Amino acid sequence: MTMTPRRRGRPGHDQDAVLAAAVRLFNTHGYDATSMFDVAESLNITKSTLYHHVSSKEQLLTMAVDRGLDGLFEAAAHSTQTTATAQLEDLIKKSVHVLAERLEFVTLLLRVHGNTEAEQHALTRRREFDRIVTDLVEKAQAEGGIRSDVDPATAARLLFGMVNSLIEWYRPDRGDPAVIAETISKLAFQGLTKRSNG
Amino acid sequence: MTMTPRRRGRPGHDQDAVLAAAVRLFNTHGYDATSMFDVAESLNITKSTLYHHVSSKEQLLTMAVDRGLDGLFEAAAHSTQTTATAQLEDLIKKSVHVLAERLEFVTLLLRVHGNTEAEQHALTRRREFDRIVTDLVEKAQAEGGIRSDVDPATAARLLFGMVNSLIEWYRPDRGDPAVIAETISKLAFQGLTKRSNG
Repeated sequence: MTMTPRRRGRPGHDQDAVLAAAVRLFNTHGYDATSMFDVAESLNITKSTLYHHVSSKEQLLTMAVDRGLDGLFEAAAHSTQTTATAQLEDLIKKSVHVLAERLEFVTLLLRVHGNTEAEQHALTRRREFDRIVTDLVEKAQAEGGIRSDVDPATAARLLFGMVNSLIEWYRPDRGDPAVIAETISKLAFQGLTKRSNG
Repeated sequence: MTMTPRRRGRPGHDQDAVLAAAVRLFNTHGYDATSMFDVAESLNITKSTLYHHVSSKEQLLTMAVDRGLDGLFEAAAHSTQTTATAQLEDLIKKSVHVLAERLEFVTLLLRVHGNTEAEQHALTRRREFDRIVTDLVEKAQAEGGIRSDVDPATAARLLFGMVNSLIEWYRPDRGDPAVIAETISKLAFQGLTKRSNG
Protein backbone atom coordinates (compact mmCIF):
# COMPACT_ATOMS: atom_id res chain seq x y z
CA MET A 1 0.00 0.00 0.00
CA THR A 2 1.02 3.63 -0.40
CA MET A 3 0.74 5.97 2.53
CA THR A 4 0.84 9.72 2.64
CA PRO A 5 2.05 11.67 5.65
CA ARG A 6 -0.85 12.76 7.82
CA ARG A 7 -0.80 16.44 6.76
CA ARG A 8 -1.32 15.54 3.10
CA GLY A 9 -4.91 14.30 3.40
CA ARG A 10 -6.90 11.15 4.00
CA PRO A 11 -5.49 10.99 7.50
CA GLY A 12 -8.39 8.90 8.80
CA HIS A 13 -8.03 6.31 6.11
CA ASP A 14 -4.29 6.03 6.52
CA GLN A 15 -4.50 5.86 10.28
CA ASP A 16 -7.13 3.13 10.02
CA ALA A 17 -4.79 1.09 7.85
CA VAL A 18 -1.93 1.58 10.30
CA LEU A 19 -4.18 0.58 13.18
CA ALA A 20 -5.48 -2.52 11.42
CA ALA A 21 -1.94 -3.67 10.61
CA ALA A 22 -0.74 -3.05 14.15
CA VAL A 23 -3.66 -4.90 15.75
CA ARG A 24 -3.11 -7.90 13.48
CA LEU A 25 0.54 -8.08 14.59
CA PHE A 26 -0.28 -7.51 18.27
CA ASN A 27 -2.85 -10.34 18.18
CA THR A 28 -0.56 -12.71 16.30
CA HIS A 29 2.80 -12.12 17.97
CA GLY A 30 1.85 -10.27 21.14
CA TYR A 31 2.09 -6.56 21.93
CA ASP A 32 5.49 -6.81 23.62
CA ALA A 33 7.02 -8.84 20.78
CA THR A 34 5.85 -6.38 18.09
CA SER A 35 8.03 -3.38 17.25
CA MET A 36 7.18 -0.22 15.35
CA PHE A 37 9.59 -1.51 12.72
CA ASP A 38 7.41 -4.64 12.35
CA VAL A 39 4.32 -2.44 11.91
CA ALA A 40 6.06 -0.27 9.29
CA GLU A 41 7.40 -3.32 7.47
CA SER A 42 3.98 -5.00 7.31
CA LEU A 43 2.63 -1.84 5.64
CA ASN A 44 5.60 -1.57 3.35
CA ILE A 45 6.41 1.92 4.62
CA THR A 46 9.39 3.34 6.49
CA LYS A 47 9.39 3.82 10.24
CA SER A 48 9.70 7.55 9.57
CA THR A 49 6.47 7.52 7.55
CA LEU A 50 4.79 5.46 10.24
CA TYR A 51 5.65 8.15 12.80
CA HIS A 52 3.78 10.70 10.67
CA HIS A 53 0.63 8.74 11.55
CA VAL A 54 1.16 7.73 15.16
CA SER A 55 3.48 8.90 17.86
CA SER A 56 4.19 5.56 19.57
CA LYS A 57 3.38 1.87 19.81
CA GLU A 58 1.49 2.66 23.01
CA GLN A 59 -0.70 5.14 21.13
CA LEU A 60 -1.57 2.35 18.67
CA LEU A 61 -2.55 0.11 21.57
CA THR A 62 -4.70 2.82 23.16
CA MET A 63 -6.46 3.58 19.86
CA ALA A 64 -7.05 -0.10 19.20
CA VAL A 65 -8.53 -1.04 22.59
CA ASP A 66 -10.62 2.14 22.56
CA ARG A 67 -12.23 1.01 19.27
CA GLY A 68 -13.49 -2.06 21.06
CA LEU A 69 -14.42 -0.23 24.26
CA ASP A 70 -16.17 2.66 22.49
CA GLY A 71 -18.37 0.14 20.68
CA LEU A 72 -19.35 -1.54 23.96
CA PHE A 73 -20.02 1.74 25.78
CA GLU A 74 -22.14 2.99 22.86
CA ALA A 75 -24.13 -0.25 23.03
CA ALA A 76 -24.75 0.43 26.72
CA ALA A 77 -25.61 4.11 26.24
CA HIS A 78 -28.27 4.15 23.56
CA SER A 79 -31.07 1.86 24.61
CA THR A 80 -34.65 2.65 23.70
CA GLN A 81 -35.82 0.01 26.16
CA THR A 82 -37.54 1.22 29.31
CA THR A 83 -36.98 -1.70 31.70
CA ALA A 84 -33.56 -2.76 33.01
CA THR A 85 -34.34 -6.34 31.94
CA ALA A 86 -34.95 -5.28 28.34
CA GLN A 87 -31.92 -2.96 28.45
CA LEU A 88 -29.74 -5.86 29.60
CA GLU A 89 -31.00 -8.10 26.81
CA ASP A 90 -30.52 -5.25 24.36
CA LEU A 91 -26.95 -4.61 25.56
CA ILE A 92 -26.02 -8.28 25.17
CA LYS A 93 -27.38 -8.48 21.64
CA LYS A 94 -25.70 -5.22 20.61
CA SER A 95 -22.43 -6.38 22.16
CA VAL A 96 -22.48 -9.48 19.95
CA HIS A 97 -22.60 -7.18 16.93
CA VAL A 98 -19.75 -5.07 18.32
CA LEU A 99 -17.65 -8.22 18.80
CA ALA A 100 -18.39 -9.51 15.32
CA GLU A 101 -17.70 -6.14 13.68
CA ARG A 102 -14.63 -5.19 15.72
CA LEU A 103 -13.36 -8.71 16.40
CA GLU A 104 -9.63 -7.95 16.18
CA PHE A 105 -9.92 -4.84 18.38
CA VAL A 106 -11.95 -6.65 21.05
CA THR A 107 -9.61 -9.66 20.88
CA LEU A 108 -6.72 -7.35 21.69
CA LEU A 109 -8.75 -5.63 24.42
CA LEU A 110 -9.62 -8.92 26.13
CA ARG A 111 -6.02 -10.11 26.09
CA VAL A 112 -4.58 -6.97 27.65
CA HIS A 113 -3.16 -7.77 31.07
CA GLY A 114 -0.02 -5.68 31.32
CA ASN A 115 1.27 -2.77 33.26
CA THR A 116 1.84 -0.03 30.73
CA GLU A 117 -0.32 3.08 31.02
CA ALA A 118 -2.25 2.12 27.89
CA GLU A 119 -3.02 -1.31 29.30
CA GLN A 120 -4.08 0.11 32.67
CA HIS A 121 -6.36 2.54 30.84
CA ALA A 122 -7.99 -0.38 29.02
CA LEU A 123 -8.42 -2.39 32.22
CA THR A 124 -10.01 0.59 33.99
CA ARG A 125 -12.53 1.06 31.17
CA ARG A 126 -13.26 -2.69 31.13
CA ARG A 127 -14.04 -2.58 34.85
CA GLU A 128 -16.36 0.40 34.27
CA PHE A 129 -18.19 -1.58 31.60
CA ASP A 130 -18.47 -4.64 33.88
CA ARG A 131 -19.95 -2.35 36.54
CA ILE A 132 -22.60 -1.15 34.07
CA VAL A 133 -23.58 -4.76 33.30
CA THR A 134 -23.69 -5.76 36.98
CA ASP A 135 -25.81 -2.68 37.77
CA LEU A 136 -28.26 -3.62 35.02
CA VAL A 137 -28.55 -7.16 36.43
CA GLU A 138 -29.22 -5.73 39.90
CA LYS A 139 -31.87 -3.34 38.57
CA ALA A 140 -33.48 -6.12 36.52
CA GLN A 141 -33.67 -8.24 39.69
CA ALA A 142 -35.09 -5.32 41.68
CA GLU A 143 -37.84 -4.72 39.11
CA GLY A 144 -38.68 -8.45 39.17
CA GLY A 145 -37.63 -9.13 35.59
CA ILE A 146 -34.91 -11.66 36.26
CA ARG A 147 -34.44 -14.29 38.96
CA SER A 148 -33.10 -13.07 42.27
CA ASP A 149 -31.31 -16.30 43.24
CA VAL A 150 -28.15 -15.52 41.24
CA ASP A 151 -25.34 -13.18 42.27
CA PRO A 152 -25.47 -10.12 39.96
CA ALA A 153 -21.68 -9.92 39.44
CA THR A 154 -21.47 -13.63 38.62
CA ALA A 155 -24.42 -13.40 36.23
CA ALA A 156 -22.80 -10.39 34.51
CA ARG A 157 -19.51 -12.30 34.15
CA LEU A 158 -21.27 -15.35 32.71
CA LEU A 159 -23.36 -13.34 30.25
CA PHE A 160 -20.22 -11.69 28.92
CA GLY A 161 -18.41 -15.01 29.13
CA MET A 162 -20.76 -16.09 26.32
CA VAL A 163 -20.45 -12.83 24.39
CA ASN A 164 -16.67 -12.63 24.73
CA SER A 165 -16.22 -16.26 23.71
CA LEU A 166 -16.83 -15.01 20.16
CA ILE A 167 -13.20 -13.91 19.99
CA GLU A 168 -12.25 -17.60 20.26
CA TRP A 169 -14.62 -19.08 17.72
CA TYR A 170 -16.50 -16.50 15.64
CA ARG A 171 -16.06 -16.62 11.90
CA PRO A 172 -18.60 -15.35 9.37
CA ASP A 173 -19.29 -18.96 8.30
CA ARG A 174 -20.27 -19.89 11.86
CA GLY A 175 -23.47 -17.93 11.85
CA ASP A 176 -24.92 -14.51 11.27
CA PRO A 177 -24.21 -12.20 14.24
CA ALA A 178 -27.96 -11.51 14.51
CA VAL A 179 -28.64 -15.25 14.86
CA ILE A 180 -25.84 -15.67 17.41
CA ALA A 181 -27.21 -12.69 19.36
CA GLU A 182 -30.66 -14.28 19.33
CA THR A 183 -29.24 -17.64 20.49
CA ILE A 184 -27.41 -16.03 23.42
CA SER A 185 -30.56 -14.15 24.33
CA LYS A 186 -32.71 -17.32 24.25
CA LEU A 187 -30.17 -19.32 26.21
CA ALA A 188 -29.57 -16.62 28.83
CA PHE A 189 -33.12 -15.40 29.39
CA GLN A 190 -35.39 -18.31 28.52
CA GLY A 191 -32.92 -21.17 29.07
CA LEU A 192 -32.20 -24.23 26.96
CA THR A 193 -34.79 -26.44 28.66
CA LYS A 194 -37.68 -27.18 26.36
CA ARG A 195 -41.01 -26.04 27.79
CA SER A 196 -44.46 -27.31 27.04
CA ASN A 197 -45.16 -24.18 24.98
CA GLY A 198 -41.76 -24.15 23.20
CA MET B 1 13.00 -25.83 47.25
CA THR B 2 15.24 -28.91 47.09
CA MET B 3 14.81 -31.37 44.31
CA THR B 4 16.12 -34.88 43.97
CA PRO B 5 16.87 -36.47 40.61
CA ARG B 6 13.95 -38.57 39.41
CA ARG B 7 15.51 -41.98 40.21
CA ARG B 8 15.98 -41.11 43.87
CA GLY B 9 12.34 -41.11 44.95
CA ARG B 10 9.31 -38.80 45.25
CA PRO B 11 9.32 -38.49 41.47
CA GLY B 12 5.62 -37.56 41.34
CA HIS B 13 5.98 -34.80 43.86
CA ASP B 14 9.07 -33.35 42.23
CA GLN B 15 7.59 -33.50 38.76
CA ASP B 16 4.40 -31.80 40.03
CA ALA B 17 6.52 -28.98 41.43
CA VAL B 18 8.38 -28.62 38.13
CA LEU B 19 5.12 -28.61 36.22
CA ALA B 20 3.51 -26.04 38.49
CA ALA B 21 6.50 -23.72 38.16
CA ALA B 22 6.59 -24.10 34.37
CA VAL B 23 2.86 -23.45 33.95
CA ARG B 24 3.08 -20.32 36.09
CA LEU B 25 5.87 -18.98 33.86
CA PHE B 26 4.13 -20.01 30.61
CA ASN B 27 0.94 -18.22 31.72
CA THR B 28 2.76 -15.10 32.88
CA HIS B 29 5.37 -14.61 30.16
CA GLY B 30 4.12 -16.87 27.37
CA TYR B 31 5.34 -20.31 26.33
CA ASP B 32 7.69 -19.02 23.65
CA ALA B 33 9.28 -16.43 25.94
CA THR B 34 9.96 -18.97 28.70
CA SER B 35 13.20 -21.00 28.59
CA MET B 36 14.15 -24.16 30.47
CA PHE B 37 16.71 -21.96 32.22
CA ASP B 38 13.86 -19.75 33.49
CA VAL B 39 12.01 -22.82 34.79
CA ALA B 40 15.14 -24.13 36.56
CA GLU B 41 15.87 -20.70 38.00
CA SER B 42 12.36 -20.26 39.39
CA LEU B 43 12.80 -23.60 41.23
CA ASN B 44 16.28 -22.70 42.39
CA ILE B 45 17.74 -25.79 40.72
CA THR B 46 20.25 -26.23 37.89
CA LYS B 47 19.16 -26.89 34.32
CA SER B 48 20.91 -30.25 34.63
CA THR B 49 18.72 -31.20 37.61
CA LEU B 50 15.64 -29.97 35.74
CA TYR B 51 16.47 -32.37 32.88
CA HIS B 52 16.39 -35.27 35.36
CA HIS B 53 12.67 -34.56 35.70
CA VAL B 54 11.59 -33.64 32.19
CA SER B 55 13.14 -34.12 28.79
CA SER B 56 12.08 -30.84 27.16
CA LYS B 57 10.02 -27.67 27.42
CA GLU B 58 7.59 -29.23 24.97
CA GLN B 59 7.11 -32.20 27.33
CA LEU B 60 6.20 -29.73 30.09
CA LEU B 61 3.63 -28.13 27.81
CA THR B 62 2.13 -31.50 26.87
CA MET B 63 1.93 -32.62 30.50
CA ALA B 64 0.36 -29.32 31.54
CA VAL B 65 -2.36 -29.14 28.89
CA ASP B 66 -3.12 -32.83 29.43
CA ARG B 67 -3.83 -32.14 33.10
CA GLY B 68 -6.58 -29.78 32.02
CA LEU B 69 -7.83 -32.00 29.19
CA ASP B 70 -7.81 -35.20 31.28
CA GLY B 71 -10.01 -33.47 33.84
CA LEU B 72 -12.51 -32.42 31.18
CA PHE B 73 -12.58 -35.83 29.50
CA GLU B 74 -13.08 -37.56 32.87
CA ALA B 75 -15.99 -35.20 33.54
CA ALA B 76 -17.52 -36.27 30.24
CA ALA B 77 -16.87 -40.00 30.75
CA HIS B 78 -18.33 -40.77 34.14
CA SER B 79 -21.91 -39.63 34.20
CA THR B 80 -24.50 -41.52 36.20
CA GLN B 81 -27.23 -39.58 34.41
CA THR B 82 -29.38 -41.48 31.94
CA THR B 83 -30.65 -38.69 29.67
CA ALA B 84 -28.43 -36.62 27.38
CA THR B 85 -29.98 -33.47 28.85
CA ALA B 86 -28.97 -34.45 32.39
CA GLN B 87 -25.55 -35.60 31.15
CA LEU B 88 -25.00 -32.22 29.51
CA GLU B 89 -25.95 -30.37 32.68
CA ASP B 90 -23.74 -32.74 34.69
CA LEU B 91 -20.79 -32.20 32.35
CA ILE B 92 -21.08 -28.43 32.62
CA LYS B 93 -21.19 -28.49 36.41
CA LYS B 94 -18.26 -30.91 36.65
CA SER B 95 -16.29 -28.80 34.17
CA VAL B 96 -16.66 -25.78 36.45
CA HIS B 97 -14.98 -27.80 39.21
CA VAL B 98 -12.21 -28.90 36.83
CA LEU B 99 -11.59 -25.27 35.87
CA ALA B 100 -11.55 -24.09 39.48
CA GLU B 101 -9.24 -26.92 40.61
CA ARG B 102 -6.89 -26.89 37.61
CA LEU B 103 -7.19 -23.21 36.75
CA GLU B 104 -3.57 -22.64 35.68
CA PHE B 105 -3.51 -25.78 33.52
CA VAL B 106 -6.78 -24.94 31.78
CA THR B 107 -5.69 -21.32 31.36
CA LEU B 108 -2.61 -22.54 29.50
CA LEU B 109 -4.72 -24.99 27.52
CA LEU B 110 -7.16 -22.32 26.38
CA ARG B 111 -4.37 -19.97 25.30
CA VAL B 112 -2.57 -22.53 23.16
CA HIS B 113 -2.69 -21.49 19.52
CA GLY B 114 0.69 -22.40 18.14
CA ASN B 115 2.18 -24.82 15.74
CA THR B 116 4.45 -27.06 17.76
CA GLU B 117 3.50 -30.72 18.00
CA ALA B 118 2.50 -30.29 21.66
CA GLU B 119 0.20 -27.40 20.77
CA GLN B 120 -1.36 -29.30 17.86
CA HIS B 121 -1.94 -32.25 20.19
CA ALA B 122 -3.77 -29.95 22.61
CA LEU B 123 -5.88 -28.40 19.86
CA THR B 124 -6.85 -31.84 18.53
CA ARG B 125 -7.98 -32.98 21.99
CA ARG B 126 -9.90 -29.72 22.49
CA ARG B 127 -11.75 -30.29 19.22
CA GLU B 128 -12.60 -33.85 20.37
CA PHE B 129 -14.01 -32.43 23.59
CA ASP B 130 -16.03 -29.79 21.72
CA ARG B 131 -17.44 -32.61 19.56
CA ILE B 132 -18.56 -34.49 22.69
CA VAL B 133 -20.40 -31.39 23.95
CA THR B 134 -22.03 -30.70 20.57
CA ASP B 135 -23.13 -34.36 20.34
CA LEU B 136 -24.72 -34.14 23.79
CA VAL B 137 -26.62 -30.99 22.77
CA GLU B 138 -27.86 -32.77 19.63
CA LYS B 139 -28.96 -35.84 21.62
CA ALA B 140 -30.64 -33.65 24.24
CA GLN B 141 -32.57 -31.92 21.45
CA ALA B 142 -33.49 -35.26 19.87
CA GLU B 143 -34.88 -36.60 23.16
CA GLY B 144 -36.89 -33.38 23.59
CA GLY B 145 -35.01 -32.19 26.67
CA ILE B 146 -33.68 -28.93 25.27
CA ARG B 147 -35.07 -26.46 22.78
CA SER B 148 -34.55 -27.35 19.14
CA ASP B 149 -34.41 -23.76 17.79
CA VAL B 150 -30.70 -23.31 18.58
CA ASP B 151 -27.76 -24.59 16.58
CA PRO B 152 -26.07 -27.37 18.61
CA ALA B 153 -22.49 -26.26 17.85
CA THR B 154 -23.30 -22.64 18.77
CA ALA B 155 -25.04 -23.73 21.98
CA ALA B 156 -22.02 -25.90 22.88
CA ARG B 157 -19.65 -22.97 22.26
CA LEU B 158 -21.76 -20.62 24.38
CA LEU B 159 -22.11 -23.08 27.26
CA PHE B 160 -18.35 -23.48 27.39
CA GLY B 161 -17.96 -19.76 26.80
CA MET B 162 -19.47 -19.37 30.26
CA VAL B 163 -17.45 -22.21 31.81
CA ASN B 164 -14.17 -21.14 30.23
CA SER B 165 -14.68 -17.51 31.26
CA LEU B 166 -13.64 -18.68 34.74
CA ILE B 167 -10.00 -18.48 33.64
CA GLU B 168 -10.52 -14.72 33.29
CA TRP B 169 -12.27 -13.97 36.55
CA TYR B 170 -12.37 -16.92 38.95
CA ARG B 171 -10.78 -16.43 42.35
CA PRO B 172 -11.74 -18.33 45.51
CA ASP B 173 -13.23 -15.12 46.97
CA ARG B 174 -15.58 -14.78 43.98
CA GLY B 175 -17.74 -17.71 44.93
CA ASP B 176 -17.67 -21.38 45.74
CA PRO B 177 -17.24 -23.48 42.57
CA ALA B 178 -20.40 -25.41 43.50
CA VAL B 179 -22.39 -22.16 43.61
CA ILE B 180 -20.89 -20.96 40.31
CA ALA B 181 -21.73 -24.35 38.73
CA GLU B 182 -25.30 -24.03 40.00
CA THR B 183 -25.57 -20.45 38.65
CA ILE B 184 -24.37 -21.52 35.18
CA SER B 185 -26.80 -24.40 35.25
CA LYS B 186 -29.75 -22.16 36.23
CA LEU B 187 -28.82 -19.55 33.65
CA ALA B 188 -28.23 -22.03 30.82
CA PHE B 189 -31.14 -24.41 31.39
CA GLN B 190 -33.85 -22.40 33.12
CA GLY B 191 -32.84 -18.92 31.98
CA LEU B 192 -32.55 -15.67 33.90
CA THR B 193 -36.13 -14.56 33.28
CA LYS B 194 -38.18 -14.71 36.44
CA ARG B 195 -41.19 -17.01 36.14
CA SER B 196 -44.42 -16.91 38.07
CA ASN B 197 -43.26 -19.96 40.05
CA GLY B 198 -39.69 -18.76 40.63
